[in-house]
Amino acid sequence: MTKTVTPDFASNAYAVIMAGGRGERFWPLSRISRPKQFLDIFGGTPLLGIAVERLQGLIPPERILIITSADLVEASRAAAPTLPAENVIGEPFGRDTAAACALGTALVAARQGGDSATVAILTADQLMEDLDVYRQTLRDAHALAAAEPVIVTIGITPTYAATGFGYVEVAEPLDFAAPTEFHKVARFVEKPDAETAAAYVVGGRHFWNAGMFIWSVSTFNAALQRSKPELAAAIEAVKPAIGTPAFAAALESAYNKIERISVDYAVMEHADNIAMARGKFGWDDVGSWTAIGSHFPADEADNVRLGATELMNARGNIVVSDADHLVAVYGADDLVVVHTGDATLVCPRDKVAEIKGLVARIGQRPDGAKLT
Amino acid sequence: MTKTVTPDFASNAYAVIMAGGRGERFWPLSRISRPKQFLDIFGGTPLLGIAVERLQGLIPPERILIITSADLVEASRAAAPTLPAENVIGEPFGRDTAAACALGTALVAARQGGDSATVAILTADQLMEDLDVYRQTLRDAHALAAAEPVIVTIGITPTYAATGFGYVEVAEPLDFAAPTEFHKVARFVEKPDAETAAAYVVGGRHFWNAGMFIWSVSTFNAALQRSKPELAAAIEAVKPAIGTPAFAAALESAYNKIERISVDYAVMEHADNIAMARGKFGWDDVGSWTAIGSHFPADEADNVRLGATELMNARGNIVVSDADHLVAVYGADDLVVVHTGDATLVCPRDKVAEIKGLVARIGQRPDGAKLT
Repeated sequence: MTKTVTPDFASNAYAVIMAGGRGERFWPLSRISRPKQFLDIFGGTPLLGIAVERLQGLIPPERILIITSADLVEASRAAAPTLPAENVIGEPFGRDTAAACALGTALVAARQGGDSATVAILTADQLMEDLDVYRQTLRDAHALAAAEPVIVTIGITPTYAATGFGYVEVAEPLDFAAPTEFHKVARFVEKPDAETAAAYVVGGRHFWNAGMFIWSVSTFNAALQRSKPELAAAIEAVKPAIGTPAFAAALESAYNKIERISVDYAVMEHADNIAMARGKFGWDDVGSWTAIGSHFPADEADNVRLGATELMNARGNIVVSDADHLVAVYGADDLVVVHTGDATLVCPRDKVAEIKGLVARIGQRPDGAKLT
Repeated sequence: MTKTVTPDFASNAYAVIMAGGRGERFWPLSRISRPKQFLDIFGGTPLLGIAVERLQGLIPPERILIITSADLVEASRAAAPTLPAENVIGEPFGRDTAAACALGTALVAARQGGDSATVAILTADQLMEDLDVYRQTLRDAHALAAAEPVIVTIGITPTYAATGFGYVEVAEPLDFAAPTEFHKVARFVEKPDAETAAAYVVGGRHFWNAGMFIWSVSTFNAALQRSKPELAAAIEAVKPAIGTPAFAAALESAYNKIERISVDYAVMEHADNIAMARGKFGWDDVGSWTAIGSHFPADEADNVRLGATELMNARGNIVVSDADHLVAVYGADDLVVVHTGDATLVCPRDKVAEIKGLVARIGQRPDGAKLT
């Protein structure tokens, strides 16, 4: 069957940007008080601001929500100044993505006053190369979610055998008339080992789970009710307080009852009504300094250099400083060197994804609170 | 023949400490305006001060001279506060060690009023482990230089196949009754290649040229006159101005005529009256960050850490910072990382001897004067 749907983007398509991450992997440039969504090394606009700007022409600011941690609400408002202040909502503490998705969907339902609104769950720490294709993909995904009771996820063709991402295994193509290519989803698979990941790359049936989901309020609520009724009930209890002074207290009470679980585990792995949109817009999760390196032009020795640097007999390094401090690298290859006012990191490129433990140990230092 | 000599150390034994080096190899901690002889990471005393203190009980401060560059005279006086101010002499510009040796010997001759004084030419950037043995070696070398018309050099038993030092090849032992072991010198050899150096280590007839020489004024003058009469003449012309206001101008005039050449090339390679004292006092030339590393206790992962550092999964690194800035290294081995207020260096341990070119390039930056 072929359907053609023209959703009313002017009234019932929303976006919820999840921006609660700590981003230890960007230490020392990111800190607890300034996570990676506030990194502004991409032309001066923080990643969170880029995520909002990316929706321009698709979803108006009044229908874009940001869910972040309570202590980052002000910083998030500053990073996304086009959004109404009330569209930035703080969680009392992090409860992973299932809680944030449920909260975001409930907030949309309260605003739109019903279950037919569609919601795109997005993250703040990704970069897209081709914005026209990105917007078209979201537009088509909203349309599909409005037309059918399906949860739409966006899958990215793997370009290497990544072990740091979950994968989406697809079944047959979905017959939906749109520029975007849709497939039925066979299953979600967790981060694979290297051998499995390599098989996925050549097999052609597995895509990176980019952590973006599009669903209608009713479809999500039904799926959540099926797989995590206690989470659904906890968020349901918050709904009467939305838009009232009692909201913060109600949310904290609910979050105290909610288990820490990702939306992948809580919903996706149990649902059988998932569709995948192929995301062909040049996606990068900006998950670490290495990913950052791919967004800036390299010099003739394949070094990516930001700020005051001097390199000699050095190849493939990512070196970040500021204008007032020179970072010099001699005779070393494939390092990440990041200098900030009070801390410097030196780490091989292929190990930057592991620095979480180092940051935790730094947090134990007498000056750890300041440094992490 | 066996001779026993008790030199009158109270009156005619001098030391001249050459402290004119730029020390690029300790960048960024050392700078043109603060060369390595002013590094104070060894318990708070700068290397130059340590070099003076080392002579305590052997040569009194009034008979210790420092030859440095004109712009470092004040800093040198501050680093060696026990010396009379007039004992710190500035060269208008560097002309390598032959000029400094000739100048130092001329200054001693002027003070002592004759040719029988003995002079130990020492450097400021070395560390000695056993000071008693060091002083005994110098005492014996002064005695030999007073008793015989020989130039005494101090040779160090090579502990590895170093290609960064010149070597002294010894002939038969010298019959001189003293605790120190003396040999006649067959020849001076330049920095060897790795294969030759390895052969030297096992051969037992080659010693590191530590750059320390002991001679009487008359012996040195005769040798210089033979091999470099024009240098001898240039310094001879300065002598009448010593101790007068005309000294600086006379010295600059002389230095303008002097070629840039080391005392090894200018004198040692031409002289046949050289003796070598075996230096068994635990010598280290502190020539680079790697050498520095051997003077501080390493942690259980063989890392040498000075200042605020945090290392994880990292072995064999030398990491230097200050208390106000944390340098964190994750997953990297055998690096030198040195952080200062305005510059940071990252370089593999085995390449730190090569950073001269990097420092030169940094000097070409708009802010290069400040940074080098």
